[in-house]
Amino acid sequence: MHIAMIGCGQLARMMALEGWHLGMTFSFLAESGENRSCVEGLGDIVELTPALSGRKLFEALGEPEVVTVEREHVDVAMLRDLASFCQVTPNPDAIEICQHRGREKNFVNALGVPTAPYRLINSAESLKAAIEALGLPVIVKSCEEGYDGRGQWKIDNTQELDALLLENTMEGDFIVEGFVAFEKEASIVAMRSSKGECAFYPLAENEHRNGILISSIAPAELPSPSLSAEARKIAQSIIEKMDYVGVLSIEFFVMHDQLLVNELAPRVHNSGHWTQAAGICSQFENHLRSIAGITLGATEPTTHAGMVNVLGQKLNTNWLVDSNVQLHDYNKTPRPNRKVGHLNVWSSDRQKLVNQIHELKCAIYGDE
Amino acid sequence: MHIAMIGCGQLARMMALEGWHLGMTFSFLAESGENRSCVEGLGDIVELTPALSGRKLFEALGEPEVVTVEREHVDVAMLRDLASFCQVTPNPDAIEICQHRGREKNFVNALGVPTAPYRLINSAESLKAAIEALGLPVIVKSCEEGYDGRGQWKIDNTQELDALLLENTMEGDFIVEGFVAFEKEASIVAMRSSKGECAFYPLAENEHRNGILISSIAPAELPSPSLSAEARKIAQSIIEKMDYVGVLSIEFFVMHDQLLVNELAPRVHNSGHWTQAAGICSQFENHLRSIAGITLGATEPTTHAGMVNVLGQKLNTNWLVDSNVQLHDYNKTPRPNRKVGHLNVWSSDRQKLVNQIHELKCAIYGDE
Repeated sequence: MHIAMIGCGQLARMMALEGWHLGMTFSFLAESGENRSCVEGLGDIVELTPALSGRKLFEALGEPEVVTVEREHVDVAMLRDLASFCQVTPNPDAIEICQHRGREKNFVNALGVPTAPYRLINSAESLKAAIEALGLPVIVKSCEEGYDGRGQWKIDNTQELDALLLENTMEGDFIVEGFVAFEKEASIVAMRSSKGECAFYPLAENEHRNGILISSIAPAELPSPSLSAEARKIAQSIIEKMDYVGVLSIEFFVMHDQLLVNELAPRVHNSGHWTQAAGICSQFENHLRSIAGITLGATEPTTHAGMVNVLGQKLNTNWLVDSNVQLHDYNKTPRPNRKVGHLNVWSSDRQKLVNQIHELKCAIYGDE
Repeated sequence: MHIAMIGCGQLARMMALEGWHLGMTFSFLAESGENRSCVEGLGDIVELTPALSGRKLFEALGEPEVVTVEREHVDVAMLRDLASFCQVTPNPDAIEICQHRGREKNFVNALGVPTAPYRLINSAESLKAAIEALGLPVIVKSCEEGYDGRGQWKIDNTQELDALLLENTMEGDFIVEGFVAFEKEASIVAMRSSKGECAFYPLAENEHRNGILISSIAPAELPSPSLSAEARKIAQSIIEKMDYVGVLSIEFFVMHDQLLVNELAPRVHNSGHWTQAAGICSQFENHLRSIAGITLGATEPTTHAGMVNVLGQKLNTNWLVDSNVQLHDYNKTPRPNRKVGHLNVWSSDRQKLVNQIHELKCAIYGDE
């Protein structure tokens, strides 16, 4: 099976490396100026130009049987165009929902699935009205831009509101979210195959720093055991409503006895990288199995597993001091806060794993 | 780290796919006419020509930091030549021992490690004398040629001896082995890193058909529990005596209370492919970690795991009927008895695994 991937980052790289084992071949669509180092050598790289559309683009990509994505910010008109020639999965409607925080929240709420309280705004006045309604503190987020903490502002008091309004006219689509006192952040990687089979990895709990994921541990330790089934139920309702094929990731705020959906990602997810190391089928392989209609691979780890991201610095094999650590190098040049690789760790003893992840963060960031 | 691999087969392919995760880059040396489909795209492929030797070959391979092999039948003079420019590992002396069944058996016996009784012969007369000494039945094997059952003859009676002598003058190096009534065949994948660390996967038990490996299950069920430690002891004595760096595989005949060494392979081994699926570090990654001096990855599976080879036919994703089956496709065109891929399976329940491997063999070969 020949698969075209929209995007040339580490997620595309890791999918391709798994896909090679399945006998799949790949091509990659790069936007003009997009760095290609992650996927160089793993398949043809095609640069998107205005002249390339429809059949020409399909042919340039090697006439793939399936087009899929490694990121949500993709031109959906282009995807709909490609859908005349081959399967495009996840479907462009699903991707479009996930491209806009407002559409996404409305979609989720319409299913009866709770989120933090929110208002959609597009001006200074509507921002003020939203704060009036929700109460401080709030988080303001650009609806269509920003990831890893960019395009987001926390407002604790009126001084911070004034400072934001001095910098930003708030024209455009923004979402204002009421602050929720969550116990932890967790995420689920769910999938549905083209044959309708669904599967779910256990919830992972995530630590962020400055809005960027630093580490994950799975399965998550939950304040209430019912939340695990709740996460699957929510994920199932979303993927079925979206008629989704492939891997979909959902970030949650974990409240004492409830999950609030924070964000959807129509793709494999950084918080699912631990699935490469838990003796199961990884999220990367399962995304490919989903879209190829192959029976989904095992998602229930028999061990605890975790991941530590490496941001902004050269990778160092000296971090692999223990036999249960594995390195994934993205072939990227380090820049501040850039994700250049990750370490996966696993153990039958959760506390040992927690300690080891702590030690790895100390070794990498020297700050704990 | 840039690594040059001698050979372009599936073992090179699987090492490279694991090495990409570690940030390694690869080049591959192809003999004239050698099929390259397994490694196409995974690094530069250099064709060996008479003009390419010494520094020129080193440069053509991209000035690797390490040269390693995916097969034992390699020109050791060429390896010694390359050793002036970079690390060559496993070392050429070790590879040379493994290239010749006579040298190999003598080496093993000199360590006090038992093998089947044998005689080295190079003529019809010496063959007859060997049979006289060992008694029928015997196995006659070419010392330097043949694998997967080729270049081997079992002789049960004088008629079969006469038939062989009609076909073959027995000029050249042959080994005659007395037949041993082994209970099963098993193998160990051992490794030693450039820093001296040693590690061992558990023994796998192997089923052959017509001399070709069909399936493996690990850990092996052994007639005596001490054989597991015995296998490690033998492996350790061999890798230390050889001053070996990398993965070394040893095939054994399992007797009731003893192991006899059947064959050494200075490389990753087909009977170790299950290590890709047992939630540990695979033999492919561990070979690379060994030669790069990285702490060796975990070798103790917490589950039972097995492998079924796919020979001589197109791969079919319909074999992945269960979520605990993974496919490894070598990108080869099927030809009779050609290894084109394998399936890995794992389970916490050994009997379930045994049944599943049986079912997979039925699905693939339809003969059980």
